Amino acid sequence: MIYLDNAASTPLCTEALDAMMPYLKDEYGNPSSIHRSGRNALRAVQAARKQIAGLVGAEPQEIVLTSGGTESNNMAILGAARTRPDSHIITTAIEHDAVLEVCARLESAGHPVTYVKPGSDGIIDPGDVLAAITPETSLVSVMAANNEVGTVQDIAAIAAICAQRGVLFHTDAVQAAGKIPIDAHLLGADMISFSSHKINGPKGVGALYVKKGTHLEPMIYGGGQEGGMRSGTENVAAVAGFGAACGVARERMAADSERILGLRERMIEGVRSRIPHSVLNGDAARRLPGNVHFTFLGISGEDLIIKLDECGMAASTGSACSVHTQKESHVLGAMGLDRERIDGSLRMTIGAHNTQDEIDSALDILDSCVVELRRVSPFRQKYGF
Amino acid sequence: MIYLDNAASTPLCTEALDAMMPYLKDEYGNPSSIHRSGRNALRAVQAARKQIAGLVGAEPQEIVLTSGGTESNNMAILGAARTRPDSHIITTAIEHDAVLEVCARLESAGHPVTYVKPGSDGIIDPGDVLAAITPETSLVSVMAANNEVGTVQDIAAIAAICAQRGVLFHTDAVQAAGKIPIDAHLLGADMISFSSHKINGPKGVGALYVKKGTHLEPMIYGGGQEGGMRSGTENVAAVAGFGAACGVARERMAADSERILGLRERMIEGVRSRIPHSVLNGDAARRLPGNVHFTFLGISGEDLIIKLDECGMAASTGSACSVHTQKESHVLGAMGLDRERIDGSLRMTIGAHNTQDEIDSALDILDSCVVELRRVSPFRQKYGF
Repeated sequence: MIYLDNAASTPLCTEALDAMMPYLKDEYGNPSSIHRSGRNALRAVQAARKQIAGLVGAEPQEIVLTSGGTESNNMAILGAARTRPDSHIITTAIEHDAVLEVCARLESAGHPVTYVKPGSDGIIDPGDVLAAITPETSLVSVMAANNEVGTVQDIAAIAAICAQRGVLFHTDAVQAAGKIPIDAHLLGADMISFSSHKINGPKGVGALYVKKGTHLEPMIYGGGQEGGMRSGTENVAAVAGFGAACGVARERMAADSERILGLRERMIEGVRSRIPHSVLNGDAARRLPGNVHFTFLGISGEDLIIKLDECGMAASTGSACSVHTQKESHVLGAMGLDRERIDGSLRMTIGAHNTQDEIDSALDILDSCVVELRRVSPFRQKYGF
Repeated sequence: MIYLDNAASTPLCTEALDAMMPYLKDEYGNPSSIHRSGRNALRAVQAARKQIAGLVGAEPQEIVLTSGGTESNNMAILGAARTRPDSHIITTAIEHDAVLEVCARLESAGHPVTYVKPGSDGIIDPGDVLAAITPETSLVSVMAANNEVGTVQDIAAIAAICAQRGVLFHTDAVQAAGKIPIDAHLLGADMISFSSHKINGPKGVGALYVKKGTHLEPMIYGGGQEGGMRSGTENVAAVAGFGAACGVARERMAADSERILGLRERMIEGVRSRIPHSVLNGDAARRLPGNVHFTFLGISGEDLIIKLDECGMAASTGSACSVHTQKESHVLGAMGLDRERIDGSLRMTIGAHNTQDEIDSALDILDSCVVELRRVSPFRQKYGF
């Protein structure tokens, strides 16, 4: 199988699996236990926390371990909002549901929320964020990179605006961390969410960077783990795997990203030269190294995915998570794309494990599947397929 | 090492590890993805959900997968309370912090909370729960078995009282599930929390049984996984491991519990016959098969644990989670035990992997460590050690 759905989930790297195995086998202690078995588990969590912090340029004590990116986003936004009742919140219309659904919940609890719209290129203008800030604004949440079209936002500019206006700034860096440099201290963000399974670590673990001195209401209460910010027995094996994945990502990010960017450009050029009536969605330059997102006019992206799957290629129409709700992409809608352009869209996301041969084979498969579907397209005459 | 801290965490059984491995290796898809890789992951989650439901006699669709027992307890209590503002909540003084800290949070948010006290035997009188119910009561949360002294509560009687009075009933069955029979439908509970790593499954996953038709406010919003009750990419490997562990627990519970009960009685008898001035805490009969909890008068339980650890034996003073707060056991306090009795207490919890030889060796180690510590005890004269 040619797996080009790395924005949905990634294969576990061997370093992460190796780091997990001792904690799935002999070292099964609870990090809160004071005997040797507990201390060994605690040491693993502490070592991993350093690696996790290192990926985003944070101090280990600024990292709250969570069950994943969704929980991190919830903790950041609900945690900040609950300490500031009725305050105004700013986010964007192209966030992941793990931000938008939280904001919807807060709206119904009395928080006014402003959803800043992107341009047709999928880029948020920091000026629009600035213009939305009022004296009642408590929090701005803007994703570092979009999960569908891969557009990379100028979060440094937005963080600076927020710092100047005394407003908390959170960024969902689930897609960005490990792919492009994210340095918490350089950036000046107050909170950064990231996830393990998007960077070749295990599922079920993630982190929220919380800048020293930032007050959040915890979401899960209990034994007082994570400095009281997130109770529950630490997921030791997964944390160790996440730590190893962060170590690998940090070490190889520059080289990997360059290679992946080369594959992305090869794929984009290949589509453009071979498949007519295809349109790249999202800014061509300000996008994640591994993101390829096209509309193939005249066909349905969902039909295309199913056909590609039959041919041994895994891709997506957009966010994996939106499958549950079966709704049209709110990201492409916010970018002003019309129905036909949205319907025919396909996301292919390249990861560290993909090869040039895979990209070339994927182009062949994609080309033949698009041709086949267009043969029976109701738009055949319109485009002259 | 002789590991007698199975109430804190347990070794992963081989069935669980075997069930996890495919999802840590080749099957890394996101269950929300519609291609084959995603469908394989989804199938694993669905199969595991059946096994997990089976352990507590529930329907698969009544199981909400969480990151662990703490999250399950938070989801149940916060989720119920948030739909019933200012309502009265009843719990007990001997719950785990994952319940008590949630109740403390709700108290500060305006919910009156009644904490029912146990007898000196660690047993809650269902009549006391009944007496505490008022027309404003929305929820009763009473643990099925205590994590420190292992006492088993009459939750069937309490569930019946709640059903009759039209009050939601939640039970924290983190220590009980897989050890003693828990049947959601027979019991008539509305919500039941349980955890994977207490029953030889992996850490980082747990479940909340939610009876069909019970309305809870979700705690984590996003992509709509778990029927909208708990968003976030499913922890596929851990869920598969949890499922396998539930399958094993269900199949072997009767035989394992009998064997473990035998080891418990051997240990209790051994302590009583060999170590003077030792007192069993918690009801002798109504307790978990694997729980041994003694006070060794005249010494500090913490010193004892450290000494036992040096001799290759892992035990605990009580809840692993209370280490973070360094506070005295609230369970023993609520049972009316005095300071000296609390200070000298030790919990040894026997699991499916322990053998009779280990119990006999543990008794030798325990005996010699107690003797050694009593030699330097300030209470030496008082007890004539």
